Amino acid sequence: VTPRTRDGHALSLGVDIGGTKSHGLVLDDADRVLAERVLPTEPSEAGIRRTVLAVAGALADDLGTTPASFTSVGLGIPGVVDHTSGVVETAVNLGITRTDLAALLSRDFCADVRVENDVKATALGAGLALAETQRDLAYVNLGTGLAAAVVSNGRLVRGARNGAGEIGHLAIDPAGELCTCGQRGCLETVLGGNYLTRRLVSLGLDLAGLGGDPRPAAAAERARVIDALTTTLTLVVITYDPAVVVLGGGVLRTAGWLRPLVEEELRRRASVSGFLAGLAVDGRLVELPTATPVAAIGAAVVGRKKKLRARPAAVGAALEG
Amino acid sequence: VTPRTRDGHALSLGVDIGGTKSHGLVLDDADRVLAERVLPTEPSEAGIRRTVLAVAGALADDLGTTPASFTSVGLGIPGVVDHTSGVVETAVNLGITRTDLAALLSRDFCADVRVENDVKATALGAGLALAETQRDLAYVNLGTGLAAAVVSNGRLVRGARNGAGEIGHLAIDPAGELCTCGQRGCLETVLGGNYLTRRLVSLGLDLAGLGGDPRPAAAAERARVIDALTTTLTLVVITYDPAVVVLGGGVLRTAGWLRPLVEEELRRRASVSGFLAGLAVDGRLVELPTATPVAAIGAAVVGRKKKLRARPAAVGAALEG
Repeated sequence: VTPRTRDGHALSLGVDIGGTKSHGLVLDDADRVLAERVLPTEPSEAGIRRTVLAVAGALADDLGTTPASFTSVGLGIPGVVDHTSGVVETAVNLGITRTDLAALLSRDFCADVRVENDVKATALGAGLALAETQRDLAYVNLGTGLAAAVVSNGRLVRGARNGAGEIGHLAIDPAGELCTCGQRGCLETVLGGNYLTRRLVSLGLDLAGLGGDPRPAAAAERARVIDALTTTLTLVVITYDPAVVVLGGGVLRTAGWLRPLVEEELRRRASVSGFLAGLAVDGRLVELPTATPVAAIGAAVVGRKKKLRARPAAVGAALEG
Repeated sequence: VTPRTRDGHALSLGVDIGGTKSHGLVLDDADRVLAERVLPTEPSEAGIRRTVLAVAGALADDLGTTPASFTSVGLGIPGVVDHTSGVVETAVNLGITRTDLAALLSRDFCADVRVENDVKATALGAGLALAETQRDLAYVNLGTGLAAAVVSNGRLVRGARNGAGEIGHLAIDPAGELCTCGQRGCLETVLGGNYLTRRLVSLGLDLAGLGGDPRPAAAAERARVIDALTTTLTLVVITYDPAVVVLGGGVLRTAGWLRPLVEEELRRRASVSGFLAGLAVDGRLVELPTATPVAAIGAAVVGRKKKLRARPAAVGAALEG
């Protein structure tokens, strides 16, 4: 299949549909960001369709064209997605269950619409934005939940049911908090934003201030979080061995104190284990660039449905310009 | 590069170099096993070269040709391997350290020699032998050590340093046994054949009989092993989400009682967790076929250096015939 082009160039639309706002952009075939727009997300099926069309229309206007000229369309959405069909099984924050989002939008565009879970899309976007397309990369999202996405050999490791990377539900503490999944002591019950915020509030603590809070209760919570994240990152490196582990998500952004303390704990563990020292987990950590619309770039990559392959110079130039 | 062929057909040599014997075979381009040979392994660098040449020579004789006619050569070896260079970093059982095995053998064949860790090669071989080349597959090896190898999108997930799948060194019990890696309570200290056998011997127990041993010490050890393997398999499914989890290795073969009891424990855990019930880990388990030379088939696949793609009918026919 020959992709449609405008003046011989592809126009890849990517939209990251977030709980409150949706971030859209258009990449050309040299991975340059040609236009970028952020609009509020309307919940519900009809609302999401309107949101995507509003973003697409605004971007097309910016480029002096119409949404019909987009040569590929990719969407990232927080929820369980069957990327082969474009069906979103559940996306709680957006008020939808089992929606065939690809079909819903297919008549609005000339190109096929592809949909992917937003954490997985972000991993692809991070690969492009960090020019890490030749080496394996993991993205660990510390958001309301905890999940990872891995790009290996230029492609997402999705697994049989798109379930790869659901590491938030690894149970590490039989005496831990009960998880909504039915297990006890899942990593997500310690690190997931929902659980973490609720627990801290009940203790009169807050996530942003936890790093410098001298009270014993704060120290205990801090140690718990540091320990669980250190275990999570070690687990990601042991299982997937990515060259780069990208960290992102709301919890990480709020807890500015977290990364240095986790690096300290990684080094402490490495000091007693030659194996861990050899893994050098701390040397693989990179924070998700906040000035770059990585999730939307990833959505555009999802739309292309091609193996990830960067043109580092072009991406860098576009992102900085 | 056009592969060399004999009468228009590829002849892919694969040799699985084991601690005591080496298993070689030749696949044609329809994945049929044309010849198969097993010879004792000589340790040391020179010994391994002689072993591979003896196997290759015998297979060539069987086919009425010479080793020069092999169009690809792949080796599987128990050790840390850099598959890009063919350098074996360590292979303790074979008495070699940092050997450029590919270079050592390159002048003996007309084709390039490719080398891979034997667990990873076996995962590729299992994909071909089980005709599971379209869906992701994990191979969990319960041998002297514990490791997994995953094939995703038709390719091995190797990671940046060929370390993907080293799940034996996930520390799950801070009060557990000290591991040679320096950590405490690694999965391998419970499930790895070296640790397990030594501990059972010290308790007057044996692995084969452990399943039906009514003594309390046996029950405790049994529970420990079942718990650790259940956790391992759950971990593999949560991280990689493979359609099929292939189980193999000496510990599994000796402990015939193990798989049914692990399946029982998987179902017990699923009964209290909707998430685990949804994963249906027990339904993904398959035992490594023992009548098929899977590791050697995998070595031949390594030699081809192509994405895994089965011709299921042909493989089945050759393996049964």
